[in-house]
Amino acid sequence: MRHLLQSDDFTAAELDRLMDLADDIIARPEHYKNACEGKKLATLFFEPSTRTRLSFEAAMYELGGHVLSVSSMASSSAAKGESVQDTVRVAGCYADIIAMRHPQEGAPYAARRVTTVPLINAGDGAHHHPTQTLADILTIRREKGRLDHLTVGLCGDLKYGRTVHSLVECLSERAGVRFVFISPSQLAMPEQMLHTMLEEKNVPYTQTDSLEKALPELDVLYMTRVQRERFDDLSQYEALKDSYVLDLAKMKLAKHDCIVLHPLPRVNEIDPQVDADPRACYFKEVYNGKIMRMALILTLLGLAGGAGFAKSERAAAQGKLPEGCVEAQCSNAHCISQTEQGLPHLAAPVPGRPGVYRCVWCDHLI
Amino acid sequence: MRHLLQSDDFTAAELDRLMDLADDIIARPEHYKNACEGKKLATLFFEPSTRTRLSFEAAMYELGGHVLSVSSMASSSAAKGESVQDTVRVAGCYADIIAMRHPQEGAPYAARRVTTVPLINAGDGAHHHPTQTLADILTIRREKGRLDHLTVGLCGDLKYGRTVHSLVECLSERAGVRFVFISPSQLAMPEQMLHTMLEEKNVPYTQTDSLEKALPELDVLYMTRVQRERFDDLSQYEALKDSYVLDLAKMKLAKHDCIVLHPLPRVNEIDPQVDADPRACYFKEVYNGKIMRMALILTLLGLAGGAGFAKSERAAAQGKLPEGCVEAQCSNAHCISQTEQGLPHLAAPVPGRPGVYRCVWCDHLI
Amino acid sequence: MRHLLQSDDFTAAELDRLMDLADDIIARPEHYKNACEGKKLATLFFEPSTRTRLSFEAAMYELGGHVLSVSSMASSSAAKGESVQDTVRVAGCYADIIAMRHPQEGAPYAARRVTTVPLINAGDGAHHHPTQTLADILTIRREKGRLDHLTVGLCGDLKYGRTVHSLVECLSERAGVRFVFISPSQLAMPEQMLHTMLEEKNVPYTQTDSLEKALPELDVLYMTRVQRERFDDLSQYEALKDSYVLDLAKMKLAKHDCIVLHPLPRVNEIDPQVDADPRACYFKEVYNGKIMRMALILTLLGLAGGAGFAKSERAAAQGKLPEGCVEAQCSNAHCISQTEQGLPHLAAPVPGRPGVYRCVWCDHLI
Repeated sequence: MRHLLQSDDFTAAELDRLMDLADDIIARPEHYKNACEGKKLATLFFEPSTRTRLSFEAAMYELGGHVLSVSSMASSSAAKGESVQDTVRVAGCYADIIAMRHPQEGAPYAARRVTTVPLINAGDGAHHHPTQTLADILTIRREKGRLDHLTVGLCGDLKYGRTVHSLVECLSERAGVRFVFISPSQLAMPEQMLHTMLEEKNVPYTQTDSLEKALPELDVLYMTRVQRERFDDLSQYEALKDSYVLDLAKMKLAKHDCIVLHPLPRVNEIDPQVDADPRACYFKEVYNGKIMRMALILTLLGLAGGAGFAKSERAAAQGKLPEGCVEAQCSNAHCISQTEQGLPHLAAPVPGRPGVYRCVWCDHLI
Repeated sequence: MRHLLQSDDFTAAELDRLMDLADDIIARPEHYKNACEGKKLATLFFEPSTRTRLSFEAAMYELGGHVLSVSSMASSSAAKGESVQDTVRVAGCYADIIAMRHPQEGAPYAARRVTTVPLINAGDGAHHHPTQTLADILTIRREKGRLDHLTVGLCGDLKYGRTVHSLVECLSERAGVRFVFISPSQLAMPEQMLHTMLEEKNVPYTQTDSLEKALPELDVLYMTRVQRERFDDLSQYEALKDSYVLDLAKMKLAKHDCIVLHPLPRVNEIDPQVDADPRACYFKEVYNGKIMRMALILTLLGLAGGAGFAKSERAAAQGKLPEGCVEAQCSNAHCISQTEQGLPHLAAPVPGRPGVYRCVWCDHLI
Repeated sequence: MRHLLQSDDFTAAELDRLMDLADDIIARPEHYKNACEGKKLATLFFEPSTRTRLSFEAAMYELGGHVLSVSSMASSSAAKGESVQDTVRVAGCYADIIAMRHPQEGAPYAARRVTTVPLINAGDGAHHHPTQTLADILTIRREKGRLDHLTVGLCGDLKYGRTVHSLVECLSERAGVRFVFISPSQLAMPEQMLHTMLEEKNVPYTQTDSLEKALPELDVLYMTRVQRERFDDLSQYEALKDSYVLDLAKMKLAKHDCIVLHPLPRVNEIDPQVDADPRACYFKEVYNGKIMRMALILTLLGLAGGAGFAKSERAAAQGKLPEGCVEAQCSNAHCISQTEQGLPHLAAPVPGRPGVYRCVWCDHLI
């Protein structure tokens, strides 16, 4: 049984198959309209996220399936002290596949230990949100015709943005991709990520604090929001903020075929006037997110036929504890191990960094 | 593409077609049970309203369609600062038609600017709630056999009741309708409405503060609640309240074929003992509301066939800014323009009142 | 029209038919997958209970029906002062059958007065929760092959546990059943229940405070939680709590074919390590709960065919006020009669206890 908890749970070849299937769904929707007849998806949202929930539910309906919808767990069994593992095990008595969102990092990894049905991570705190990355890559591939040989700019909060990290990791496996990181220095890409995701693999990148300077060379611009809360010094925020707002003037600096993505919701980092520009692809990205979730549900349920995944080493590794684990209490206050009963407190060695360990649930360094 | 944001978005002839279709749905339900197969309705309720939401959802299910249900947006994207326009545009990537409810007046009018699918206003603050009016008129037509040549009493809070205003406007277009407005003077129909809706069109009406005196002449009695909160002087409320409660004793004063409507929920303004009286039609009204929503969904989706709307001038005018608009900040604290990004602050001249302008979003006079 | 508000609304013979139907659903699921096509279940949860709601919704979907889902009424019509009776009457205009959960005891009994469709009690405060009992008895019958001639241990909070009381009452009608009540003295079975449910019918039982001593003789162990809040003296709770936690060590004392049930959610009263033991049946119980709800929905909708209920005396008695009722205000602060408009305040004589009356809505002694 396969699950999707983080985007590198799938190999590049598997992601290609998923995108091929998505293309086919767009081309032949009538072929899939009863594909999940009699199947049920449970959307277990321990915290609300309307957009993501509706995307999963629309996906399941377009496949002819049913949905058991939980838009918020705030006042339910979870509040009565039930473990995430029990909740997921119970949901598996009702549904054939589960998409879960949880405010605590690592929660779906705890759930994977006991689930009897395929599990999709629809976001666990600041940790992972792999189906957003699926939407991103399908949009790039459909709009640009390829995922390789692209200059990809990422702008805004590159320090905390989980969708940024996931997209960089995912695209770094493709040939000829070059990254341009555009952010204030306070919100730059973490050094460690640059090192392991890019430098070790000889993937070229540059860093700048100027969106205007970076724009002319980009094939793809991935916008995110620069949040006021990230700044200790508000005067610094005030001085910077407008430089990371994409408007009609800045769009004039971009190539005629540069595409603009954004994981949404936006607040003010893209002027609504840009929406009418054909290069603005963030609403297409929403649509593509639904299609990729359809492809994902089909694949995990084993209903993708020839388009499904072969058995892979990566699949076999999923859910197994890494070698060399030691007992250790995680210090991340948002880690699921802080509250979940019956979850062993374990840390795994970080490859290439002797003596450094990470929590096996939330990946926080210990 | 047609939308329904306020009841006069449809002409009297269009409303007649909608009621004809509703009659046919009641007569031949099996004919419609798969009419919306593969279609999805999103019920975007930015504030909860269980009754209205369930009515829309039941309607869609009886047409064989699917529902993407959002019962409350309180802790979702909207809370993260997303605009109503973005939320509706995203929902249009998932659903084929949207019913939205919003606490801010004018919100669906802002959404109409960007929506890619038909939009139904399921209530925007104190502004409009047109599908309630659809339920009202179908009930009158089915129970009385006609919408014209009726004496219609409206009782209770006539000052603030949006369903009262909408029903009066709607029925005032029918021949031979006479209104009797029954309320304490503090809650009487607004002068301006009496003028534009009735006097200018020579529609007869009378006003009284006595339900008992008015009852014997009525063909239709539309009850609403007199809310304590509306009174500055509570002793006045205490003195008045019982006179606007419909009970078995008062029902004896009514014609044998007078029908009683109420938009519900009621609190105590109709004694539950009246429910058993065959003239009490408020639960039939609930049922008819579901049927009219079915007819509406079919029509807006273009699935009503010959029963659909022809192209009309009124349709063409929908969504266009009126002539003579000027820039002006609305002073209504509940207007969507107070918070929505990228929404121009505009006011339109009020016909027949030189120098008077109304907000184009919430209709508040400026 | 039949309803299920408490488990003894059905006779033992009717419960047997329901379990036979459940067995057939498990054996031939494809036979039932369209059985409720075009039907709608409303899950009216005035307070949230995700597990129970999802179980009903999964049941309806597996029968091919639709669901109108209300996960919480907190900020809806109910908050505007609408009566439970009005809400249920309105829901009956939308749905073919209603499952309702309400924090106030007796609420579904008030709703039964006016409902136009079959009604299922999905829990009313501490009063009744009959579909949990349906899950319990199906699990016992499927795992043990019978409901009679069993030694049934019930452990934990036997004083307040509504599912305990209901299961005892239900099994006490079967031949050869013997009960072992395992609890601290503070949480023992109420004397009155022992008297009327067991002693008067000559059903044998024993009482003990030692789970370890009781375990070896049990065919069925029904675990519940010992809640800290039930103890005035916390040191007493601390001293006791571990003795009512089922772990691997205690499981060694149980028969090889003793089954363990739990209504869930659990907190820590069953060690998760026990889950892997084949005698642990609480997740099967969850699954069986869904199946019994399918059987129940089919039966109440009159779609069970030959497996349906015959007309019975018990059915005829349902919803009728008992003889000898007197007017009396209930003193239970959680009784629906404290807030519901238009509900007569009535008490009925308790059989065999001259001069003692119980509230007809919540059964509280007056």
